[in-house]
Amino acid sequence: MNISTSLPEILRHRRQKLGELIDFPAVLWSGGSSSRNFPANTFPFRANSHFLYFAGISLQNAAIRLERGNLQLFIDDPHPSSALWHGETPTREEIAAKIGADNARPMAELADYLENAASVSVQDAPTWTQQSQLLDRWVLPQQPPQGIDLELAKAIISLRIIHDEAALVELRKAAAVSVEAHKAGMARTGKAKLEAEVRAAMEAVIMGHNMTTAYTSIVTVHGEVLHNGHYYHSLQPGDLLLADVGAETETGWAADITRTWPVSGKFSPTQRDIYDIVLAAHDACIERIAPGVEYGEIHLLAAMIIAEGLVDLGILQGKPEDLVKMDLHALFFPHGIGHLLGLDVHDMEDLGDLAGYDEGRKRSSRFGLSYLRLNRPLRPGMLVTIEPGFYQVPGILNDPKIRDQYQYLVNWERLEKFADVRGIRIEDDVLVTESGREVLTAALPNQAEAIENLVS
Amino acid sequence: MNISTSLPEILRHRRQKLGELIDFPAVLWSGGSSSRNFPANTFPFRANSHFLYFAGISLQNAAIRLERGNLQLFIDDPHPSSALWHGETPTREEIAAKIGADNARPMAELADYLENAASVSVQDAPTWTQQSQLLDRWVLPQQPPQGIDLELAKAIISLRIIHDEAALVELRKAAAVSVEAHKAGMARTGKAKLEAEVRAAMEAVIMGHNMTTAYTSIVTVHGEVLHNGHYYHSLQPGDLLLADVGAETETGWAADITRTWPVSGKFSPTQRDIYDIVLAAHDACIERIAPGVEYGEIHLLAAMIIAEGLVDLGILQGKPEDLVKMDLHALFFPHGIGHLLGLDVHDMEDLGDLAGYDEGRKRSSRFGLSYLRLNRPLRPGMLVTIEPGFYQVPGILNDPKIRDQYQYLVNWERLEKFADVRGIRIEDDVLVTESGREVLTAALPNQAEAIENLVS
Repeated sequence: MNISTSLPEILRHRRQKLGELIDFPAVLWSGGSSSRNFPANTFPFRANSHFLYFAGISLQNAAIRLERGNLQLFIDDPHPSSALWHGETPTREEIAAKIGADNARPMAELADYLENAASVSVQDAPTWTQQSQLLDRWVLPQQPPQGIDLELAKAIISLRIIHDEAALVELRKAAAVSVEAHKAGMARTGKAKLEAEVRAAMEAVIMGHNMTTAYTSIVTVHGEVLHNGHYYHSLQPGDLLLADVGAETETGWAADITRTWPVSGKFSPTQRDIYDIVLAAHDACIERIAPGVEYGEIHLLAAMIIAEGLVDLGILQGKPEDLVKMDLHALFFPHGIGHLLGLDVHDMEDLGDLAGYDEGRKRSSRFGLSYLRLNRPLRPGMLVTIEPGFYQVPGILNDPKIRDQYQYLVNWERLEKFADVRGIRIEDDVLVTESGREVLTAALPNQAEAIENLVS
Repeated sequence: MNISTSLPEILRHRRQKLGELIDFPAVLWSGGSSSRNFPANTFPFRANSHFLYFAGISLQNAAIRLERGNLQLFIDDPHPSSALWHGETPTREEIAAKIGADNARPMAELADYLENAASVSVQDAPTWTQQSQLLDRWVLPQQPPQGIDLELAKAIISLRIIHDEAALVELRKAAAVSVEAHKAGMARTGKAKLEAEVRAAMEAVIMGHNMTTAYTSIVTVHGEVLHNGHYYHSLQPGDLLLADVGAETETGWAADITRTWPVSGKFSPTQRDIYDIVLAAHDACIERIAPGVEYGEIHLLAAMIIAEGLVDLGILQGKPEDLVKMDLHALFFPHGIGHLLGLDVHDMEDLGDLAGYDEGRKRSSRFGLSYLRLNRPLRPGMLVTIEPGFYQVPGILNDPKIRDQYQYLVNWERLEKFADVRGIRIEDDVLVTESGREVLTAALPNQAEAIENLVS
């Protein structure tokens, strides 16, 4: 399949592969829009990712039925009054032609085509309630799939986890626009008073390309709050600004990039010391990516390099390999090294750990490993993030039990010298290739001096 | 009450007024966040507006119980692991102190405090399902309230429809930032290739002030599509760009502004002719706003001025008053002159027409009146939009029945000369005052020359 392949061909190829994996029909719903504060004021509609993978375009309140390579579309024609409010919208038959559906019917007829059909829960409650009623079994987002639904989920995962050329075209677009957004954020920092202004400059690039953000942006001088969704802090010259911002293309494909830069345009010596440790871990992990390599080992490699670096700086005391075994790295790097990336920023996380964890594997209960979202051998076509970090999380480092347990392994006095390093993360998107790897976000510098040059 | 009044005082005042109107307890839920594509990837949370009015701040998965001026808060303390991902978040008691709650309890105890309590449906399905279960009756967003729920809705409307000083402080902030956003959009137009770029420049201003958009922005060269939510069209020199964009403050108060400007920076003579008609209607409607005036009459005033203007231009043929009676204006101005504005952009539209229509009034079935969202006598403290427009909607003007019915009243040949006027709307936010009116968005010019000067 080549980049200029038409949408119907791309989709036919995907559903033929699905047809080789399952011998029962699959019905996938797109979902409906969610109300913000009143029914007519909705959030921007985002179709279900499994639907998008096989239907190619974002359609609201639609379903597709896939069986042995055949595609049936279910959607209602626009209401006659819709032209006034929403303009001329394509008819069912026009949409069917666009995506190469074998036939198309009104939604009301879907009920007649559900016998022995497997499905996957969508994101919005009104639709998953409807799914459950029509299928006469519970299909819920928080409930692990069972029976044929589980078989379908595994089949879809085996396809979506290895990106085809058409997917890669979109993923590269998302990466390129996200790179531009980060550069705009760095360039805006000098004149900004609030985190919100830098966020706005970054998201404006994404929006200007008629894309959306793939997830709630993190743009904060409090990088130690891992899922910080606030933007009201003012920027001070000694602060580091952590920005985790990624674009999503019109057909739903995501990028996920983090950079951390000094508000003043110059890292302090302590910030620079830690930054270089995180970057060393980042670079080593990317260097290690290749087919057959266990992603869990890459996580442990990051842990080891961070532990070594912190021993060199006198923050940790002991042998790095012993420290990693005792989860000392996780005091400062309490999350996983990364995750799958695709139509979802945590790709297929709607299926729990089915996509992230290889058959028979489960999350570790160890503090230093439990947040790892991906634990599989790498294969060509997989796209993963690599995102090591260093954070001084008060909830961890001020915990009396932790301070007591690790009193001789952490030099707490030395650590105080690094008080101006609250949170650093460096994140890139890495495609596993036959010969090794390709960093899709490589156009965005990550070396300290290069970052300093971009901040104005 | 004065502008520097503290949040607890503002809220106490509001609930005391509610306590004078109903003698049963009211329980209001804030709602939960909605998933975008997988459970952990949510849309930005927006609390229910009725909750926000009485609780003052956006709290997720919370409820308040109001009874005779008393405020009870129900919310769970943050999970211990939450500090790692979300930072230190305030405890139940800290939140209670901030909003001046008389006491505070975990959500699980809410069930014990629901006897004889009235409520209003929230926006998200998981919460409204929970509401319905706990109250043991259906509380659904699309269902008109009954019994004490209806009494509560009417009491809340009678408060929310007249804005207090604290609300006006927020509404003025939203208006000011929206004015800035429109100026930024005009300034960006000359360099923009896509609608999306102008939208991005406008929303970046809103985001940079740490606000959100109050509704999905319309930024389009196809203004004739009334609810156009696409931004992919390219900008051509002869196009008019219609931008309907408004900010919402952190506590939920909205603005709603529309301007229409020429991409080239210069209206064509035909565009200018129509623009001036719409502006004349806009100005005359605002001039007419005063306590006691029927909003429905203001709609008809707009209809009359538009009809007169189109007769003068030779597009309509006949006496303006006759043409309005036959709904001829509605061929080109098919929506209402405006609506209530407050915590919702169509304020309290979650309650259907209860807020917009005075007791005993119903929507007209006339084409020229059926879309009117507000039909009440005006009172000081009400905030309304005034938004006349002119559109060439193909779904209306190409309808053979309409062309046949109105063949002698529209000069279809003359109309063709105005093909470069697809859609114009001019919208401002107008507060009814004791002495007349105050335009909260007056800082944004609307005269054609002034607009041309802002476009670069």
